[in-house]
Amino acid sequence: MFSNIKVISFDADDTLWVNEPYYRETEAAFCELLTKFHPEKFVNTELLKTELKNLELYGYGAKGFILSLIETALKISDHKISQESIGEIISLGKQLQNKPLILLDGVEEILDYLKTKNYKLIVATKGDLLDQERKLRKSNLEKYFHHIEVMSDKKPENYRSLLNHLDINPEEFIMIGNSLRSDILPILEIGSQAIHIPFHTTWIHETVADDNSQLNNIVKCKSLIELKKMF
Amino acid sequence: MFSNIKVISFDADDTLWVNEPYYRETEAAFCELLTKFHPEKFVNTELLKTELKNLELYGYGAKGFILSLIETALKISDHKISQESIGEIISLGKQLQNKPLILLDGVEEILDYLKTKNYKLIVATKGDLLDQERKLRKSNLEKYFHHIEVMSDKKPENYRSLLNHLDINPEEFIMIGNSLRSDILPILEIGSQAIHIPFHTTWIHETVADDNSQLNNIVKCKSLIELKKMF
Repeated sequence: MFSNIKVISFDADDTLWVNEPYYRETEAAFCELLTKFHPEKFVNTELLKTELKNLELYGYGAKGFILSLIETALKISDHKISQESIGEIISLGKQLQNKPLILLDGVEEILDYLKTKNYKLIVATKGDLLDQERKLRKSNLEKYFHHIEVMSDKKPENYRSLLNHLDINPEEFIMIGNSLRSDILPILEIGSQAIHIPFHTTWIHETVADDNSQLNNIVKCKSLIELKKMF
Repeated sequence: MFSNIKVISFDADDTLWVNEPYYRETEAAFCELLTKFHPEKFVNTELLKTELKNLELYGYGAKGFILSLIETALKISDHKISQESIGEIISLGKQLQNKPLILLDGVEEILDYLKTKNYKLIVATKGDLLDQERKLRKSNLEKYFHHIEVMSDKKPENYRSLLNHLDINPEEFIMIGNSLRSDILPILEIGSQAIHIPFHTTWIHETVADDNSQLNNIVKCKSLIELKKMF
């Protein structure tokens, strides 16, 4: 099905292992801390606003997320949130960074399979450098990958530099990931191929509008194991 | 003087541009916020303790630093620091990330000179991925460098993977930087060469004990321009 491919690139968070559900747990605990000021829905809406405002400066990852939690708590409580609760938010952040690494179904089986087919496998992940390195180490998957690229963002230009760096043409590259916004659409834009494997939980910022016309052309798999049929 | 060198690698913060003085400014403003609880010296000592405790989890860079400032403020004020002051710390962090980029003397002249001599120039910097990319963009120095490596740490094993990635031998690599601990000693340990260019302000964690016997073998320059004599 994909004949010219040399490099198969995997997104990491929610493609190889569980990530977003941990953020949701942290958000739920955060809403609890603010429950005497505002209902959960309002807190989540305000948090998203703060995160998006700070995204250019903080980038993706746990530390920027925690700073945005603290900023939101101060703002929406009119600076009345207790100092103890702020200490609690810092602890929630540390717990988030130390969550266990849980691989998604079939990860090792499919990496093993693709490796024996002589594809070059890489990880292309966005987020905090140290956190992503830590997760990769915990995952025990390092041995499968030729290269790990932690990217500050996943826009077409970021992928173009990655291809440059790997010294390959767009048609030799395929990206596999759970985020339409980060793993699929920018890849199609640069003329590479992509396979979308949806995950049950997605940060709203990573979703795209249903009427996006490009969505019709996207190759989808229900799970990693289905990739076997394609390579 | 250095005959087999193929790749010259520059540290960035306080080697190519000003960094540490901005952290000192932020620390001074932080001490001001805590002045009614403790004298400056105590605040700085406690801050360093928190930073070192968090280093393995947070890594290097502004966001982890700000989280450590907030944690320290809560701890040493016995949770009595005002919520407004915590908001102020978050603002100090954003100001730190948005400081102007000031090149050190002679940067462009020496990069130009080395480039005409056909060395491959790279940047090997530690810290936050997005912050370092942002600084490099502001610096207008991207055109000189073949490769930018943002590293989560600068231990011998980190440099070994860098050499692997660049596909060169240790004796073909030289590192230039201001930190004995991060840019010089680990480089000597892997059998590469290094040139130390001290900067007037150094974070205490980046210093090494004066009686370290390896310090006798280190090549030093007073400024970047002096490198001309060596290549």
